[in-house]
Amino acid sequence: MTELDSSVSGAGDTRAPARRPKRPGRQDWSSWPEYNAAATGFRGYWYPVTWSSHVNGKPLAVTLCGEKIALVRDNGKVHALHDRCPHRGVPLSFGDQQFPGTLSCPYHGWTFRLGDGELCAVITDGPESRICGKVRVQTYPVDERLGMVWVYVPLAGEEPHSLDSQLPEELLGNSFMLGGRIEPRTGNWRFACENGFDEGHAKYLHRTSLWRLFKPMPTWNITRIVPEGRWIYRVQDEVHWEADFPGVGRWTTKRWWKFQPPKETFNLGNTGKPKKVDPVIESYGFPGFASLAMPGMLRIAYPGFIHYEFYVPVDADHHQYVGVMVNFTEGWKSLGFYAKYLGAIRWLFHGQFSGQDAWMVDVTDAPPEKLYRPDVSLTAWRTLAEEETAKKRAEIGAK
Amino acid sequence: MTELDSSVSGAGDTRAPARRPKRPGRQDWSSWPEYNAAATGFRGYWYPVTWSSHVNGKPLAVTLCGEKIALVRDNGKVHALHDRCPHRGVPLSFGDQQFPGTLSCPYHGWTFRLGDGELCAVITDGPESRICGKVRVQTYPVDERLGMVWVYVPLAGEEPHSLDSQLPEELLGNSFMLGGRIEPRTGNWRFACENGFDEGHAKYLHRTSLWRLFKPMPTWNITRIVPEGRWIYRVQDEVHWEADFPGVGRWTTKRWWKFQPPKETFNLGNTGKPKKVDPVIESYGFPGFASLAMPGMLRIAYPGFIHYEFYVPVDADHHQYVGVMVNFTEGWKSLGFYAKYLGAIRWLFHGQFSGQDAWMVDVTDAPPEKLYRPDVSLTAWRTLAEEETAKKRAEIGAK
Amino acid sequence: MTELDSSVSGAGDTRAPARRPKRPGRQDWSSWPEYNAAATGFRGYWYPVTWSSHVNGKPLAVTLCGEKIALVRDNGKVHALHDRCPHRGVPLSFGDQQFPGTLSCPYHGWTFRLGDGELCAVITDGPESRICGKVRVQTYPVDERLGMVWVYVPLAGEEPHSLDSQLPEELLGNSFMLGGRIEPRTGNWRFACENGFDEGHAKYLHRTSLWRLFKPMPTWNITRIVPEGRWIYRVQDEVHWEADFPGVGRWTTKRWWKFQPPKETFNLGNTGKPKKVDPVIESYGFPGFASLAMPGMLRIAYPGFIHYEFYVPVDADHHQYVGVMVNFTEGWKSLGFYAKYLGAIRWLFHGQFSGQDAWMVDVTDAPPEKLYRPDVSLTAWRTLAEEETAKKRAEIGAK
Repeated sequence: MTELDSSVSGAGDTRAPARRPKRPGRQDWSSWPEYNAAATGFRGYWYPVTWSSHVNGKPLAVTLCGEKIALVRDNGKVHALHDRCPHRGVPLSFGDQQFPGTLSCPYHGWTFRLGDGELCAVITDGPESRICGKVRVQTYPVDERLGMVWVYVPLAGEEPHSLDSQLPEELLGNSFMLGGRIEPRTGNWRFACENGFDEGHAKYLHRTSLWRLFKPMPTWNITRIVPEGRWIYRVQDEVHWEADFPGVGRWTTKRWWKFQPPKETFNLGNTGKPKKVDPVIESYGFPGFASLAMPGMLRIAYPGFIHYEFYVPVDADHHQYVGVMVNFTEGWKSLGFYAKYLGAIRWLFHGQFSGQDAWMVDVTDAPPEKLYRPDVSLTAWRTLAEEETAKKRAEIGAK
Repeated sequence: MTELDSSVSGAGDTRAPARRPKRPGRQDWSSWPEYNAAATGFRGYWYPVTWSSHVNGKPLAVTLCGEKIALVRDNGKVHALHDRCPHRGVPLSFGDQQFPGTLSCPYHGWTFRLGDGELCAVITDGPESRICGKVRVQTYPVDERLGMVWVYVPLAGEEPHSLDSQLPEELLGNSFMLGGRIEPRTGNWRFACENGFDEGHAKYLHRTSLWRLFKPMPTWNITRIVPEGRWIYRVQDEVHWEADFPGVGRWTTKRWWKFQPPKETFNLGNTGKPKKVDPVIESYGFPGFASLAMPGMLRIAYPGFIHYEFYVPVDADHHQYVGVMVNFTEGWKSLGFYAKYLGAIRWLFHGQFSGQDAWMVDVTDAPPEKLYRPDVSLTAWRTLAEEETAKKRAEIGAK
Repeated sequence: MTELDSSVSGAGDTRAPARRPKRPGRQDWSSWPEYNAAATGFRGYWYPVTWSSHVNGKPLAVTLCGEKIALVRDNGKVHALHDRCPHRGVPLSFGDQQFPGTLSCPYHGWTFRLGDGELCAVITDGPESRICGKVRVQTYPVDERLGMVWVYVPLAGEEPHSLDSQLPEELLGNSFMLGGRIEPRTGNWRFACENGFDEGHAKYLHRTSLWRLFKPMPTWNITRIVPEGRWIYRVQDEVHWEADFPGVGRWTTKRWWKFQPPKETFNLGNTGKPKKVDPVIESYGFPGFASLAMPGMLRIAYPGFIHYEFYVPVDADHHQYVGVMVNFTEGWKSLGFYAKYLGAIRWLFHGQFSGQDAWMVDVTDAPPEKLYRPDVSLTAWRTLAEEETAKKRAEIGAK
């Protein structure tokens, strides 16, 4: 991980020149060619596309990584087909099921087997149709987790991995309750993902959100990016609640009518090691409260629950925001979490707070761009994406 | 007609390999280069653009074959001018008639003679204007038939033929009553035309239309295309009301609460000759009940009336659907037809049934495409268009 | 001013061939390359962008000459900044003022000094941010006159001139009352400007406007263009209230229920000199009642007031119409003008009459074009623009 290491090297040494981006004033994304090319997303990953309850026998059309896909549930299992009849280009999602285990195009009754996409009957060509078995539509691997339908977008030459191997580790084998929102949004998925892991903006952009009444945030931090396995973590080395800007003025978000900042601040350390570890964070075993992994999966660990965001590429100008909160309790204990989620979190956090992010993601327009010190979170993410993609390509090439 | 013959050769031999398209799996339209290039329609033909009653002294703007045209009625006669003042590009259809036999641009009063498009006065340049007689706008031949205004779109080097020579023969010299609809629709005119003559879709797509309560349709047919003069006809060699699809299931549209299929089936013949001819069809003298001619004129012969569809090119993504029904009766006898038309046909056939076609035409997206056996109707039509265009070009070249 | 002289030479000799455009039938704008290239306006000028009362501490986004600009008033003075944060491309106009004399980006609190656009604080990067002072956004000179905010669009290499030197001379040092409209409109600014000075259209296009009940207009004129200083003036050598067009008919806008044309007609002269000068026009010292100057500033001198139009380029397809009427009175005498303006002028002239112009400007589509005799006003304007731009370029090159 040479590139990643270099871009985070010395992150603990808060004032050292090496902490600043190596190419100050760089305007474009040419250092991250794979990332630069991934306007419609990275192929070779699973993406959540809708709630499981929204997929039934009536086909549902979705767009994922620029590809049109028809989803249909048959005998309990969800299937995904390329949403275009090869005959005349009509969307198969406009059709319906004339026979079990199949989907028929509405125009001429071309009937495709859901399992493998093979043309198994053409109603208007009779039982002896010669074209059957000679035409196929592409199918996509589908799985269901967290109450959602996930679709795997293939990468040429790569065998699909399991969905479980892509999910956050703590979601496997544990019981939990979940609440969330899936929302179509404008703007490229990369802006959404960068916004999610962005160290810099939350403290300023969200200063006016109601969520901030309960959750005080600093004015500025010194942040280090710590890679661990497939994740990168944001670790705070310094936290500053107020600041005097020379020649400009004093700035703070402290107000007498808001919750006050905590007396103790965890996860800090000029030495590169935390002075004291937040016991809640420690309970999850994470080095930092915010972490990110491919293909755009954000994890924010709060005391008592974890918030995840998935930035699902639709096309170059649209993405889908998937935000879920998970509480690791069971049975009647989870009622409290649900009350808290439905009564507050859903509206304040997944609603107004996240809406401010959606606003910025919509109007972000980069490159060109000028990066500053806190953008180490962005460059570390881009480097992570670049390296993981290079590794995939190497593995495919080795076969 | 070599190409057409070859694409329909052996059509009577229902199981012979020769019946299948010669280039199975062909994806593009490169075999029909003229047709492929005719996204905005074929030039050198008359097209119906609106009802005669809609054209009066106030200019009406229409778009035909990608050209903007101003229609205006003067002294009973409809005139068509290119809808752009050569002075500053303002649409002439925004103007009005300041003098009999002319149309004036609203901006500076440039006044064009309706008969030949010549600039005959410029109101703001005085009576001695030197530009008069030196500028013209293009005019288009106009005629009126079937209660509609028809405009001829010129083909360089070709003399316009008469509108009568382009109309269905049976409409000349006979008395008839007529009802119809003109409707702007999205989608290329060729998809609309191919849909109209398409042997394959009606039996499946329209299975849910109310029209089908009264008009049973088969599940699949064996169809032959028979050229005769400038028309091509669809002739059924086999009609199958139900089918068992191996490994998939049984399919039928028979229902106890619908009209039942006829006991006798006409126009069939494995020998290539009809076993028995439908007496109604025979009364018109047509070899089949559905026929098509350039430049996109469909004729469906029903007992007692004939239905015509004209697919009028607007631009590459829009066309105008012109559907008319004609009843060859006169006087008080026609009252029955009108009652039937206004009470049922207009809503069920020109409305809901035809609306299903409009839906498919809108979403058809070809090429690429994969053709199947019943698409012999499409390929025969494309070949007809290709050959008639080649003939036109040859005649122009010979001059 | 060779080109301009040649295009107006002999303008007094009303029937001489030399009066007609030298390149009859010319279709394009290749003779005016600077003008042809100025689709988004001429740089190096001041433009009025909004009413002064509309600019306050909350930033206002405007587009001028294709550039996005944020306007904000601080301590009484209006500032204009390029409306794009260099960090991530977010519009600064979405931000607000966190400190006096600055504007902060809403996303990460990048804070720019209004005076020079320099990045003077980054709230989320702390007081010792190293990027401060190293990044700037472009600022634009701003001034206020006539109750409006004016922005100077820079031309590379040119020092901004004062706004006063660009305003009509009579507005400097005189007291006056003013009423007006600012309105976004579709269509290129050049069509709007050409329409404003166009000798030809008013008499015909506006024949149906209510304004014309009180203001009779001729059918056609013989017009000369007289350059004087930076202005060009339209001077009428002949005025014809009615006309008989040979073979077409008689045309007049005289009606018994309208005001009648004046008995005396001023500003005429086949000799090239006015026979008699309109005393009102003379009082202003103008050679003609309609005049035009760069960068698209029209002046129509009426008895008692002057009407100005500024055609402000937004982008290639949109402009802003700024119409103001000025009455050179003071104190209680101006009440009469206000009553007249609010009671009639605003609705009839700035409203319906000007709306007819907006309609034509929207649908003008040139080049190609065919010019006629009265278009000497257009060609003289284009030549004026061409020459003044050439002069600017020469001055810059000489530095």
